[in-house]
Amino acid sequence: MQNKSPRRHFLQMAGGGLAALASGATMAASTPASAGVTVKLPPILNATEAQTKDPVISPPGKRVGFAIVGLGHLALEEVLPAFAQSRFARPVALVSGDGNKAQSVAAQYGIAPKALYSYDDFDRIAHNKQVEVIYIILPNSMHAEFTERAAKAGKHVLCEKPMATSVAECERMIAACRTAKVRLMIAYRSQYEPIDRAIAKMAQSGQLGALREFIAGNSQRQGDVNQWRHRKALAGGGALPDIGLYCLNAARFLSGEEPTEVMARVWSPPGDARFTEVEAAVRFTMTFPSGFAATAVSSYDSHESRFFRLQGTDAWAGMNPAFAYEGLKMQSARLMDGHDTLIEPHFPAANQFARELDHMARCVRENRIPHTPGEEGLQDHRIMEAIYQSAREGRVVTIAPPPGPTRGPAPDDGEV
Amino acid sequence: MQNKSPRRHFLQMAGGGLAALASGATMAASTPASAGVTVKLPPILNATEAQTKDPVISPPGKRVGFAIVGLGHLALEEVLPAFAQSRFARPVALVSGDGNKAQSVAAQYGIAPKALYSYDDFDRIAHNKQVEVIYIILPNSMHAEFTERAAKAGKHVLCEKPMATSVAECERMIAACRTAKVRLMIAYRSQYEPIDRAIAKMAQSGQLGALREFIAGNSQRQGDVNQWRHRKALAGGGALPDIGLYCLNAARFLSGEEPTEVMARVWSPPGDARFTEVEAAVRFTMTFPSGFAATAVSSYDSHESRFFRLQGTDAWAGMNPAFAYEGLKMQSARLMDGHDTLIEPHFPAANQFARELDHMARCVRENRIPHTPGEEGLQDHRIMEAIYQSAREGRVVTIAPPPGPTRGPAPDDGEV
Amino acid sequence: MQNKSPRRHFLQMAGGGLAALASGATMAASTPASAGVTVKLPPILNATEAQTKDPVISPPGKRVGFAIVGLGHLALEEVLPAFAQSRFARPVALVSGDGNKAQSVAAQYGIAPKALYSYDDFDRIAHNKQVEVIYIILPNSMHAEFTERAAKAGKHVLCEKPMATSVAECERMIAACRTAKVRLMIAYRSQYEPIDRAIAKMAQSGQLGALREFIAGNSQRQGDVNQWRHRKALAGGGALPDIGLYCLNAARFLSGEEPTEVMARVWSPPGDARFTEVEAAVRFTMTFPSGFAATAVSSYDSHESRFFRLQGTDAWAGMNPAFAYEGLKMQSARLMDGHDTLIEPHFPAANQFARELDHMARCVRENRIPHTPGEEGLQDHRIMEAIYQSAREGRVVTIAPPPGPTRGPAPDDGEV
Amino acid sequence: MQNKSPRRHFLQMAGGGLAALASGATMAASTPASAGVTVKLPPILNATEAQTKDPVISPPGKRVGFAIVGLGHLALEEVLPAFAQSRFARPVALVSGDGNKAQSVAAQYGIAPKALYSYDDFDRIAHNKQVEVIYIILPNSMHAEFTERAAKAGKHVLCEKPMATSVAECERMIAACRTAKVRLMIAYRSQYEPIDRAIAKMAQSGQLGALREFIAGNSQRQGDVNQWRHRKALAGGGALPDIGLYCLNAARFLSGEEPTEVMARVWSPPGDARFTEVEAAVRFTMTFPSGFAATAVSSYDSHESRFFRLQGTDAWAGMNPAFAYEGLKMQSARLMDGHDTLIEPHFPAANQFARELDHMARCVRENRIPHTPGEEGLQDHRIMEAIYQSAREGRVVTIAPPPGPTRGPAPDDGEV
Repeated sequence: MQNKSPRRHFLQMAGGGLAALASGATMAASTPASAGVTVKLPPILNATEAQTKDPVISPPGKRVGFAIVGLGHLALEEVLPAFAQSRFARPVALVSGDGNKAQSVAAQYGIAPKALYSYDDFDRIAHNKQVEVIYIILPNSMHAEFTERAAKAGKHVLCEKPMATSVAECERMIAACRTAKVRLMIAYRSQYEPIDRAIAKMAQSGQLGALREFIAGNSQRQGDVNQWRHRKALAGGGALPDIGLYCLNAARFLSGEEPTEVMARVWSPPGDARFTEVEAAVRFTMTFPSGFAATAVSSYDSHESRFFRLQGTDAWAGMNPAFAYEGLKMQSARLMDGHDTLIEPHFPAANQFARELDHMARCVRENRIPHTPGEEGLQDHRIMEAIYQSAREGRVVTIAPPPGPTRGPAPDDGEV
Repeated sequence: MQNKSPRRHFLQMAGGGLAALASGATMAASTPASAGVTVKLPPILNATEAQTKDPVISPPGKRVGFAIVGLGHLALEEVLPAFAQSRFARPVALVSGDGNKAQSVAAQYGIAPKALYSYDDFDRIAHNKQVEVIYIILPNSMHAEFTERAAKAGKHVLCEKPMATSVAECERMIAACRTAKVRLMIAYRSQYEPIDRAIAKMAQSGQLGALREFIAGNSQRQGDVNQWRHRKALAGGGALPDIGLYCLNAARFLSGEEPTEVMARVWSPPGDARFTEVEAAVRFTMTFPSGFAATAVSSYDSHESRFFRLQGTDAWAGMNPAFAYEGLKMQSARLMDGHDTLIEPHFPAANQFARELDHMARCVRENRIPHTPGEEGLQDHRIMEAIYQSAREGRVVTIAPPPGPTRGPAPDDGEV
Repeated sequence: MQNKSPRRHFLQMAGGGLAALASGATMAASTPASAGVTVKLPPILNATEAQTKDPVISPPGKRVGFAIVGLGHLALEEVLPAFAQSRFARPVALVSGDGNKAQSVAAQYGIAPKALYSYDDFDRIAHNKQVEVIYIILPNSMHAEFTERAAKAGKHVLCEKPMATSVAECERMIAACRTAKVRLMIAYRSQYEPIDRAIAKMAQSGQLGALREFIAGNSQRQGDVNQWRHRKALAGGGALPDIGLYCLNAARFLSGEEPTEVMARVWSPPGDARFTEVEAAVRFTMTFPSGFAATAVSSYDSHESRFFRLQGTDAWAGMNPAFAYEGLKMQSARLMDGHDTLIEPHFPAANQFARELDHMARCVRENRIPHTPGEEGLQDHRIMEAIYQSAREGRVVTIAPPPGPTRGPAPDDGEV
Repeated sequence: MQNKSPRRHFLQMAGGGLAALASGATMAASTPASAGVTVKLPPILNATEAQTKDPVISPPGKRVGFAIVGLGHLALEEVLPAFAQSRFARPVALVSGDGNKAQSVAAQYGIAPKALYSYDDFDRIAHNKQVEVIYIILPNSMHAEFTERAAKAGKHVLCEKPMATSVAECERMIAACRTAKVRLMIAYRSQYEPIDRAIAKMAQSGQLGALREFIAGNSQRQGDVNQWRHRKALAGGGALPDIGLYCLNAARFLSGEEPTEVMARVWSPPGDARFTEVEAAVRFTMTFPSGFAATAVSSYDSHESRFFRLQGTDAWAGMNPAFAYEGLKMQSARLMDGHDTLIEPHFPAANQFARELDHMARCVRENRIPHTPGEEGLQDHRIMEAIYQSAREGRVVTIAPPPGPTRGPAPDDGEV
């Protein structure tokens, strides 16, 4: 799957089940658009890329249709706008508990009024042939239920992180999708972000020497006590599953290794209504069989601070800021001409959500395993349960290796 | 025009004189919005902005229709994709010398096949009611002709910078649009970019003290000898009108002052086929009546280097990198607690082209003068002619003040 | 002891009880200064400081005399050269196991041949009246013995960090100095470094909000297997007491709080001759009663990486690089005008060793408790023993509060 | 003179023709070193340097003796303290118009009371055998007179920049030293600073491609109207000879080329008492035969801003901040792995004054031409006169090539 020409793959797939649509050069393809469909298709490539790569953008009628489940902040502010920067995906249905809001949003994005669903009648979506993927952007505790219902409806599932609120739920979700023969992908957007991917390549190809330490922080000041994120039953936890998870997951995907032990402490400010049910802060160290260790701090009650540094015996590479939606920056350091030298390559801004949508779209079209399938989310939940156990018991907790691979092939370079 | 609620203006206009347009095919889609439902769908706003501002996005049917004239690199890689991030604009027609290319692009962007024009039959566009603005993205020498033809067709004009290849052409363009009672805006994207605007405010409100020096560089390695930019008849000049212009224009709009003298040198590497007709490099100092001076260097034959620093008696502010499409960063320095202190505020990435399109769209809807009208472009051409004269004659050349204001009201903060 | 005029104190002392000392060989040179002429000769102050402060430099004959015990790398490359940048201290004796080396060094620094001692005849130093302070720069395991011998000789002691190799040794050292009525200071140079001190003030005056997280890394690639630092009997441990100690100590002095619990892991690469006796890496989290926590990573087997970030609810402040001898840089971040803003004040370079020497000199002259007395070192050793215990037992270990204050008054601003 | 072992040369000189000097009062101290023991005591070298290089420090009695002429700010705050960080130089005499001040300073630095001179009896210094070099740190207009008097006294001359107040004075100074067979060096400290030297090497070895543009700014807010720097008769000019000179000189020594044309503007705020005689600001562009150009801005009435960027066709390198006494930082940019990449090597802090002193000391001992002899200063004055002429006449002024080389061999790497 190291093909340099994503377009060929995509058109091959399109030329299968989508033969009717694909017939004609671009003329036929434009038929749906000329029928009045509103198309928003910025490729978002800078000048340099455009001249050196072979970008592909798919016309609306060939794109993979997504239903968005949940119209909260993330869906409205990040995911729906990101379709405009995707190349292979388009929004074709909305699922919301608020019918008025859904109608307004649908009007903005050219989604047909008949493609709006409530949570109750969601299962009708099985009959909407335009919908190929269900993107679940709901409170964590609802991920399992909607994944199971989506699978039953025969739809592929893209589910926000954290995958669920327990290992048990993750396992149910994986089983449901396997039974239904649909794809399940967890929305780990950092794994589709160019700088993270560049650092993972550096690390795994030995450019840092032997990996030794990963140090990360992901903190923000969480203000609104009424948010569902402060309710244990809805969120499953506090800072850890929401933002600490970025550190945990990054340590794993950057190193390509799996931890076997963890030691952790959690903390909440006494008498703070925001943190009566979930932790405000978590601090943990995971150790890996190679000797590599990942130490991280994540807080819901600190001024914003997001960074990581991955240290090898010969060099380090990191991001500061890291983990954010935009404004990411890479640094690395190594000896050059006898001087310890800071190196900051410029990466053009990339919309992580658009890249994520496109990866899922291609996995659907090309019938392949997503880079971050349910198994990736399950493994993080196994580790998070160990972290909470360690914090509770005040001792080191061991973690069994995952039973199999947790990731599918990485997106190739041409894809993104 | 300091209104904090751009939406109200926009909807008033949309509901008023533009009723005919608004009652078109997409009317149904706009119903929910016109029914008063507040929809927050900023295409590319980060979480913080979304919570504190009141952004507006217009449904397709209410947007201002643009025809794109010229399908070169800038149009394909930057401008057309930027429509997806605009709030008030949409592409509805294409004008190109290459019919096949136009058809393919139209299919991508959902533009009707009947809305494609060649340069020869361009004047037919007068009959296309969806087209309200003609965006001219052609070689510089064609700007005047197409502005005049667009004005005759009764369409508003947004014209890429540099405005033309001579002062005389600029004056013809302004006259043509005045006669036709259409708006003329020059696409000075930096003047719609948030960091540039923040620095202009700092400077003009005295936060830097008295302005003293502006120092800027805008250089890149221009490779392709066959580009029209290397032909004097098409481009009007070399590095100066293309990239040096950013420095020149920034000195003026950041300070709010107009130069009265200029001293300049130009250079081309002997025997270099790229630079037989146009200059490779220009270095100039403009002086202003207040004592403020702007010194800049621009080269087509240097490794990429883009920055400026605006120095006052009490502080400085600048950008590094500056002038680029993305990745811009602000710095300033002043004394804090006895230490000279570097200050770098984080600005969320903003698509300058989308903001430019939206400003033009609102000027059309609200019947107001653009922030960067033809007079702004004319003034830059007056200065550029003085620069070339100074370089030719090896002496300081004086510049008469512009006959009137060169700018319309700045976009208010709510707008962008 | 918040006096703004260190000069007055110093001269009082010099002119008072130390008259005998001052009437030595350099008396003639000191006449003008003692006659009341104000001399401004800061060895390493930049122009701004010189104009705004009132620095003092003491002529040679009035300076406090130091004996340097141990002529290893740190003594030769950092401490002895730093006397040239001190204002109140001078080297007057050397103690070494290598007589030739001592003679050569003495010639360089103008130290009299009769003021050279071997480790065996060190106790003769009691008779050398020029020696007021013994600065111990020996392998950690020798600190206790030489502190006791110095105290018996009636000399004040400045001892390198880590203070010793065990809590028990620290207690012996404190007792010996108390009995002998001499001062004992541990050479925690960061506590005399201007940026560290500025951050401590910010933190303790509430400018960061409530303190929440301290995250730090101090790593380097330790190459030479033959160094005494790799022998447990000489060093007492590996990365922890040598470089991890910077993180541990900074968490304490920046916050002004004391930890009550620690959780830690240590690691050594199997089969690596450098790490058969001492740990290569340590990762630990200390928790404090206020909820503040300090998480740190320190490795002897990673590319150089030195930084910390102290996060409060309203802002963070940190250093990157941190902990090094030079090249230190401060950063902080907070909201300014709605933007999360990075703030980097410029601090003129300051020689930490010179400042440390001067603090000790003044404590001797002014008969006051050093800012970092033996109790400060003892507390760090209590915590390090808890860290090793936690790592051994795989569980959280509690730490009793220190029995009393661990620090004397901070140097006032005029002093440094 | 590309010898890799500065020590050998130095000791040869010291042991040879300078025997008389070496047998003075400090002979005893030098005995161990002269007995052949290798001593490694660099005052300000970091660990890495110390381990990889072969630094030398000379004992007091073998050092070259300097007389400091003028005890103003620069002498007291920078030059005299820098002797403590030099390896080959020591202060042995002072020349001042203020006898009390001279006595106090002498006491601080261990200078004999008999080695103090007034400006009137300066010529007596001919009889002081300890004085080998006269370092002139006086108002610019006094440089020529004291250089001539020093030469007549048979002493080598180190003269602060700017060399004088006119080309004619420079020529007199060179002639006087030639006649007297003494060395003349101008104190261009940047040419002895490691980062500047690294960039000069990059540029001249082709690592930036063909050199195209140098852009620099050196500005500060000059406050005190009573300073001699504001009097034309004393300073010769305003911002240009004081701080603009750094830009001018850097363009020359970094590129290794000489300009043939200059175009310049100067400015002073009307009615400002500080600038009735000298210019507040200068802006100039020098062009070089290769096509390379240097554009610079220097102001006495702007917030501090010091930087330069040297742009080639393939990369750029620069400093920000530049030109300052300390806190200098290098940046460069080039394409790496397809990304435009910012590269910041860490250079340990180096005292530029100490390096300058040591270079002069070695030139004296080893009987060689300084790297920045009088000819280097003369060439800058020729260019400054052209700058003022261009500003006065409002036209480009040509500059004849220097009649011969302007620089002696660069210090070799082992030296500093």
